[in-house]
Amino acid sequence: MKAVILSIGDELILGQTVDSNSAWLSAQLSDRGVMPLYHKTVADDVQATVIAMKEACELADVVIATGGLGPTADDLTRQAMATLINRPLDLHPPSLDRIKAYFKSLDRDMPVTNRIQAMVPRGSEVLDNDWGTAPGIKVKVGKTVIFALPGVPHEMMKMVERYVLPLFQHGVGNALAVETLNTFGAGESTVAEKLGDIMRRDRNPLVGTTVSGGIVTIRIRSEAPTPLLAQKKLVQTVLEVEARLGKLIFGRGDLTLTDKVAQVCGAAKIKLAVAESCTGGLVAKMLTDVPGSSAWFTGGWVAYSNEMKVRDLGVPISVIENEGAVSEAVVRAMVSGALEKSGSDMAVALTGVAGPEGGSHEKPVGTVWIGLASREKGDCHVQASRFQFPGNRQMVRDRAAKTAINWLRLELAKTKPV
Amino acid sequence: MKAVILSIGDELILGQTVDSNSAWLSAQLSDRGVMPLYHKTVADDVQATVIAMKEACELADVVIATGGLGPTADDLTRQAMATLINRPLDLHPPSLDRIKAYFKSLDRDMPVTNRIQAMVPRGSEVLDNDWGTAPGIKVKVGKTVIFALPGVPHEMMKMVERYVLPLFQHGVGNALAVETLNTFGAGESTVAEKLGDIMRRDRNPLVGTTVSGGIVTIRIRSEAPTPLLAQKKLVQTVLEVEARLGKLIFGRGDLTLTDKVAQVCGAAKIKLAVAESCTGGLVAKMLTDVPGSSAWFTGGWVAYSNEMKVRDLGVPISVIENEGAVSEAVVRAMVSGALEKSGSDMAVALTGVAGPEGGSHEKPVGTVWIGLASREKGDCHVQASRFQFPGNRQMVRDRAAKTAINWLRLELAKTKPV
Repeated sequence: MKAVILSIGDELILGQTVDSNSAWLSAQLSDRGVMPLYHKTVADDVQATVIAMKEACELADVVIATGGLGPTADDLTRQAMATLINRPLDLHPPSLDRIKAYFKSLDRDMPVTNRIQAMVPRGSEVLDNDWGTAPGIKVKVGKTVIFALPGVPHEMMKMVERYVLPLFQHGVGNALAVETLNTFGAGESTVAEKLGDIMRRDRNPLVGTTVSGGIVTIRIRSEAPTPLLAQKKLVQTVLEVEARLGKLIFGRGDLTLTDKVAQVCGAAKIKLAVAESCTGGLVAKMLTDVPGSSAWFTGGWVAYSNEMKVRDLGVPISVIENEGAVSEAVVRAMVSGALEKSGSDMAVALTGVAGPEGGSHEKPVGTVWIGLASREKGDCHVQASRFQFPGNRQMVRDRAAKTAINWLRLELAKTKPV
Repeated sequence: MKAVILSIGDELILGQTVDSNSAWLSAQLSDRGVMPLYHKTVADDVQATVIAMKEACELADVVIATGGLGPTADDLTRQAMATLINRPLDLHPPSLDRIKAYFKSLDRDMPVTNRIQAMVPRGSEVLDNDWGTAPGIKVKVGKTVIFALPGVPHEMMKMVERYVLPLFQHGVGNALAVETLNTFGAGESTVAEKLGDIMRRDRNPLVGTTVSGGIVTIRIRSEAPTPLLAQKKLVQTVLEVEARLGKLIFGRGDLTLTDKVAQVCGAAKIKLAVAESCTGGLVAKMLTDVPGSSAWFTGGWVAYSNEMKVRDLGVPISVIENEGAVSEAVVRAMVSGALEKSGSDMAVALTGVAGPEGGSHEKPVGTVWIGLASREKGDCHVQASRFQFPGNRQMVRDRAAKTAINWLRLELAKTKPV
């Protein structure tokens, strides 16, 4: 089965919106053994859309297009599909009723502009949308099936699950099994060196690496005549990669650094607290991204001002005055304050220079002190380390937050099996 | 000038990474009056890359490709370009020296795998990379120029600024002027209704809307024979859009909700504090995303546990027991505690059910109470409002945080001109 993914929208071609839909769709297909031939993005333009759909139909069995089904005048995917199959647009009364009912559930009348969303090319199949207003449209061109779906991610995802993925349930030639392992704490070329010959391009399973936001991901793709064999070969390579990378690996697939911390804290009933300065709430936000985090996350202080560091965390004002807010002594006082005050089992604290202003020769932008406190036989045991992160404000904050959470993960691994 | 944007990488085609480079590139080009013909994404595959480059050369004057220049065996853009122009790969000694020097600056030896990054197709132009290891490569095919650049965003951006954008400085046919206005607080079809006939598809300037993360963006694109005329027509339409949408608009271009709050707080010396439960630090994180926020952001409490609400914010335990943690009484106590304790001029607090667990009939997932406290003649004036946000945990948290910041923006507008 060959697939092509199209995304349609001026906002994409003008660079005002990042196309996350194509990545999500690709992940769904590759999980089912289909690697899309390509993604293509075109503007809200009937002709450009028709050309992209025609090209795709020449190569693919399935074309999945998202976007251009909104209620406004620049949403033209309906018209493009009508042009492609040379049929007029007709009103689809059941869809109009559904759209009206959708607005009624929000206690509103349907704006007249939304009526266009009930128009579909004659002879096409209408795909009900239970999560928004625009129905999807399915047409057949030769032996290629084209799905046109809304661009709103959560509507698109639900509709793909209902209407598109069932097509991909059955075997499609050679079986494919894929796995991803996520690492933190080393650069891509260091990871590649550790992997060595496992990364040979002609190897099966094929092992590749990518880096995003400081996280180096190992992708493993195993092909074999049967799913069982593909899976078996995959597992062998996964084990080999794990042996070479050790603790750098924090988890598989979609598992985040925080998910790993959450698993251990949840299972071992370990409570965490956070005191943040330069990351401004990002560590707490990442920790509470995980559903159920209230079971182990007690809370955090975004101690941005010196007053708050003194008042809420008990950092002595003299230490701030003598050592500066970005210093080992301050981070140690912050983290022990957070541990003691919250009554948690473990705490992290961060203070640093996120930039772009505020750097000095001794403490340039990117300097971050991280402290980690834990209880040992009732006492508060504090460690602290200085880091130098590259990049702009956003990168420094992101890497600092992930480094703190990764330190929690490694520390938790010492007390409990990870 | 016609342009095509290519991105190359298995991680993109497998959906493991979202392609943000193409959006950034598109924004750079459209700011300079060039709307790319399309984006195309292909796998780390020599043949697929060669085909995509050939296709693009048939239509475009400039092709910008990112990705596939890394040090590992699955980075094949170099080989693809050599195949495209039918030349071998040669070692480029100055690049090898640069790569070695780059590692030396990090106190490390160059891993042997990185040597491949100094290989370039014979006869191509080497583009020095001062921000990472892989140099870019420039080749000419007929009258089309192809740039191949690293996929790492910050390296790619710097190299585009240095090597690619100078090509786009001069006029390119009809002049284009673009502006975007960002709104928060109404859905896309409500915004479209308010805009009415301004959104006609045959209008110039052309007005379109897109929605992302609850923010509806109005895109205005003005074409005219001269830049001055395009700009003049643009300004007229911007004024008309502003008149129709009023306070829904919070800013132009890249300006975020927080940027707007930061401008007012910075100028009027108004200090802010935050107390968060369900958003878990996200509001504080968004506020401190802005450089210089320490001038007006005093700090925040991530009062995830009831203990912290009581101990740090002075919420009476009886109120939590009687009304529940998600209640008007609790959010009022949280926000007045945050205001008083921090000595700020304004504070927001949030408590809600982010899900997926924890919902009830009276307080389903998505229920969030937001409180806003300000000083009026020395007294603490508190307002509170209940919201019901749609979507999953991540969406509920995101919309709740933005709604709180938007409320700050609107409240600040009453005291000071926004």
